[in-house]
Amino acid sequence: MAVPVNRRVTLAARPAGFPKESNFALVEAPVPEPQPGEALVRVLWTSVDPYQRGRMSEARSYAKPVEVGEVMTAQSAGEVVESRDPRFQPGDKVVGPLGWQEYAVARGGTLRKTVPGAPLQTALHVLGTNGLTAYFGLLDVARPKPGDTVVVSAAAGGVGQVVGQLAKLAGCRAVGIAGGPEKVHELTETFGYDAGIDYKGEDIAAALKEACPDGVDVYFDNVGGEITDAVFRRLAIGARIAICGQISQYKLEQPELAPRNLGLLIVYRARVEGFLVSDYAHRFGEAVPRLARWLAEGRVRYTEDVVEGIERAPEAFLRMLRGENRGKQLVHVAD
Amino acid sequence: MAVPVNRRVTLAARPAGFPKESNFALVEAPVPEPQPGEALVRVLWTSVDPYQRGRMSEARSYAKPVEVGEVMTAQSAGEVVESRDPRFQPGDKVVGPLGWQEYAVARGGTLRKTVPGAPLQTALHVLGTNGLTAYFGLLDVARPKPGDTVVVSAAAGGVGQVVGQLAKLAGCRAVGIAGGPEKVHELTETFGYDAGIDYKGEDIAAALKEACPDGVDVYFDNVGGEITDAVFRRLAIGARIAICGQISQYKLEQPELAPRNLGLLIVYRARVEGFLVSDYAHRFGEAVPRLARWLAEGRVRYTEDVVEGIERAPEAFLRMLRGENRGKQLVHVAD
Repeated sequence: MAVPVNRRVTLAARPAGFPKESNFALVEAPVPEPQPGEALVRVLWTSVDPYQRGRMSEARSYAKPVEVGEVMTAQSAGEVVESRDPRFQPGDKVVGPLGWQEYAVARGGTLRKTVPGAPLQTALHVLGTNGLTAYFGLLDVARPKPGDTVVVSAAAGGVGQVVGQLAKLAGCRAVGIAGGPEKVHELTETFGYDAGIDYKGEDIAAALKEACPDGVDVYFDNVGGEITDAVFRRLAIGARIAICGQISQYKLEQPELAPRNLGLLIVYRARVEGFLVSDYAHRFGEAVPRLARWLAEGRVRYTEDVVEGIERAPEAFLRMLRGENRGKQLVHVAD
Repeated sequence: MAVPVNRRVTLAARPAGFPKESNFALVEAPVPEPQPGEALVRVLWTSVDPYQRGRMSEARSYAKPVEVGEVMTAQSAGEVVESRDPRFQPGDKVVGPLGWQEYAVARGGTLRKTVPGAPLQTALHVLGTNGLTAYFGLLDVARPKPGDTVVVSAAAGGVGQVVGQLAKLAGCRAVGIAGGPEKVHELTETFGYDAGIDYKGEDIAAALKEACPDGVDVYFDNVGGEITDAVFRRLAIGARIAICGQISQYKLEQPELAPRNLGLLIVYRARVEGFLVSDYAHRFGEAVPRLARWLAEGRVRYTEDVVEGIERAPEAFLRMLRGENRGKQLVHVAD
């Protein structure tokens, strides 16, 4: 019997500005052996997300960078093959920080069993980091009240599609911003947004004024840049802004210059707060069952954009960074 | 007997960028008559503050602008001459939005009796808007914990000098930023700051690194601009930033361009919040007696920079905007 090979996507070189496929390498390695307290997982699905751009850089940030030659950091979902942690058995479906590779060993404490009955890959979006990011960023950081107008940027993406639906569940009016008529159509037709704004095809300031006549009470920001500038100028008194990501800035070689706008926070008595979903890990047990129930009830829906094969993870990642994905971008690694 | 004349300083023309004395006019008018519910006050002291620059512009903000020809908005303190509000008697010392003028009528509800035994003009700084701004901005918006490092910009000014002392009362390490060695000396010698930084004479990034080796937990911002950029790069995880003013920006004809920095809020899980002291008016009764007690006990101290005569209010205002004042800038109108 042939020795199984573990195909892995590593960081080959740090990018300057927008990444390219040549920043990554596909390498083969032996399937690793689990040590005591670890489990070996066969990866079936892996995820591409904007935060991975940050990990490719050496710059100081909230997590240590991926080293050149190391496998790319990623959340992946799969099946336990062998376990030396008594909490896991072969055949268990799990999710965790397993990276872009076909097999991974991980300490049991970093793995979480997925929700029975839900499609496995939902552990990488609605029932995983994306859904948890939406849940804690909207409900804990921005704290919407019924009647609030909630604006979401990158509203058709993995996080944004959940934020809009949670805003509706919280009794808010939801306004999504996305690029292109197809995505904007999806916002209102699939994800229940009350209005969608196409930042590529519309004047954003005018569209915000029309969609938010009483101003913006909550802004869930995934993108930063000029879209965020426009939202800042439409805030309502007492607005709350959750900074989840700044994807428009990740592709830049140099920081973009823009008019300073902290003075607007005085005018609107507004609060801006950055957050990381990992800071809420002790409360995932509160959020996952709620998201799973809403998913089962059809109150939270999702769309996916699937690429086949671990070797195409870089391609999927670049598609997502360019905004070409339709719904949550995933990589299907094995059946 | 001569009819008394009311000398008033009005807005003569809206400024573009940094204001000039020609933006103001000194006019004479009859002393006004109080109507039912109003009191006539003889102004003894008036205040100049950065927010008045905002009121001179037509731009949308949190308060309506002063119209050309109207008396300049200001907090003033004085003595009731005649009252048609039963809550006030001639001889009462009061503070309120009386403007830059020698006599003013005001509705009783806008006036507040000053603290007996405290110098009257403290109602314009430690026991007035400046002290209340420091109290609510620091304690309610930024919420310092004992052991926090609190950085204050414009730390020697009317608000800043109180913020540092309240931070010390709250068990924090206080670091003040001011312009010039005399002001910086005052920070540590008079106001109890643990360290002072001279933004005119020192490399601000290096000085912040030395004064805040564990990062900045709380930043009370009066100035904005490059000083604030430097503080953002030294934040500690979980930092809280209270935006009180952005005086560096008030003198500009065009908004200044600067690198975007909302992404840093994710790295540091930081919160930035703008506030207006007027939103806390319902709680002034909590703060004024505390500030008065600390003042009487010598735990809160102040310095003043006094100009004589209502006709010199514009000069005092421009001094303050240029940062040339030493301590709280006041105008002494009459004995």
